Amino acid sequence: MYHKESVRIHKTLLVELDSLKGETTFRIGNISIQVEGKDGIGGLIEEWFGIWADKHRFNITNPKKQGSSQEFPDYYIGKDQSLLEVKTFDFSASANFDLANFESYCESVAHMPERVDSDYLIFAYRLEKSALKIENVWLKKIWEITCPSERWALKTQTKRDVIYNIRPANWYSDKTKYKTFASKQDFINALFKTQQDYTGSSYKTLYLENLSKMNKQ
Amino acid sequence: MYHKESVRIHKTLLVELDSLKGETTFRIGNISIQVEGKDGIGGLIEEWFGIWADKHRFNITNPKKQGSSQEFPDYYIGKDQSLLEVKTFDFSASANFDLANFESYCESVAHMPERVDSDYLIFAYRLEKSALKIENVWLKKIWEITCPSERWALKTQTKRDVIYNIRPANWYSDKTKYKTFASKQDFINALFKTQQDYTGSSYKTLYLENLSKMNKQ
Repeated sequence: MYHKESVRIHKTLLVELDSLKGETTFRIGNISIQVEGKDGIGGLIEEWFGIWADKHRFNITNPKKQGSSQEFPDYYIGKDQSLLEVKTFDFSASANFDLANFESYCESVAHMPERVDSDYLIFAYRLEKSALKIENVWLKKIWEITCPSERWALKTQTKRDVIYNIRPANWYSDKTKYKTFASKQDFINALFKTQQDYTGSSYKTLYLENLSKMNKQ
Repeated sequence: MYHKESVRIHKTLLVELDSLKGETTFRIGNISIQVEGKDGIGGLIEEWFGIWADKHRFNITNPKKQGSSQEFPDYYIGKDQSLLEVKTFDFSASANFDLANFESYCESVAHMPERVDSDYLIFAYRLEKSALKIENVWLKKIWEITCPSERWALKTQTKRDVIYNIRPANWYSDKTKYKTFASKQDFINALFKTQQDYTGSSYKTLYLENLSKMNKQ
């Protein structure tokens, strides 16, 4: 189900997991400080991952490093240019990263159904004082890390009745009220049902048309 | 006018200025990254300063390191426990740090007139890619780094008619419309005139009473 290069990356990260420790050091002149603040750590782990993957000669490319300003993906993977997204979260809190802007995601999935098949590589870190440790790494599909919510068929970040982002389920916990979706189809149904309930119409028909074209290619 | 220990600290920093270069390094396993983000740099320079001053055996103490949760000062200085505040700003932008919460400052100055005499040690830094450089350090009194504004007798951060913080003048620039105050008295007058105009009353009388008590001690 996952791209074979993603699987190799994930396995290698798990093999190295015990050594994935580090810290942030701030220096002026000959005085150095171990940084305890969490600001920006997610972005630094994502940047670190790109260098780590290059050093291991995995077949991934970062479109932003090639001058693209596109929003997604974080990486193209393998010869077939599959999509890989990298996410991080503080394991001492709940996973609360943005999977995607809700409306942009509906639109891009409708025009480009293969986006639903993106692989997600997710890093959980912990910072104790200044000591950083990667606690776990998951390889997931979007329907394995999303769920329904009280309010919508798909859990989203909603403020004052406005939907902003698609937010993750607690897929790594047993103690969660809402379980992740059982299949890609369940996720797609929840995505477009949420769009229908929210805006009064949905891109589901457009998605199905484009999916059918894609499958004929 | 400034505390003699503040003057020694300031002079030593200016002597060392050319060597006040550094960077932030993020490491996981055997891969390190030079950090280019500016998040949190001000706080790190303040923390660095405390260690730098200890190494140089300057006579300053950080009340927060002794378990105090008080808002000010950043440091007590000298045997007489004078007040020292440390501020930082990105020299590629304008000085925009908060000098103090406006209402808290009015109240604390009224009850403790010596707060107006705090020394301010101000670091201007520049970050080019990941290279950090302290460009300048000033030692100032509050009336030397504050000014009037279009709206109030004292320049403040005001949003939707609510005053939040006292904000600095561009004391280091010739090209500024509002010059800094000529004296402590001008600053005090502007502070309490702003409070009067903003709230309909001011603590000026209380300040003068407490100032007179202080001077009799």
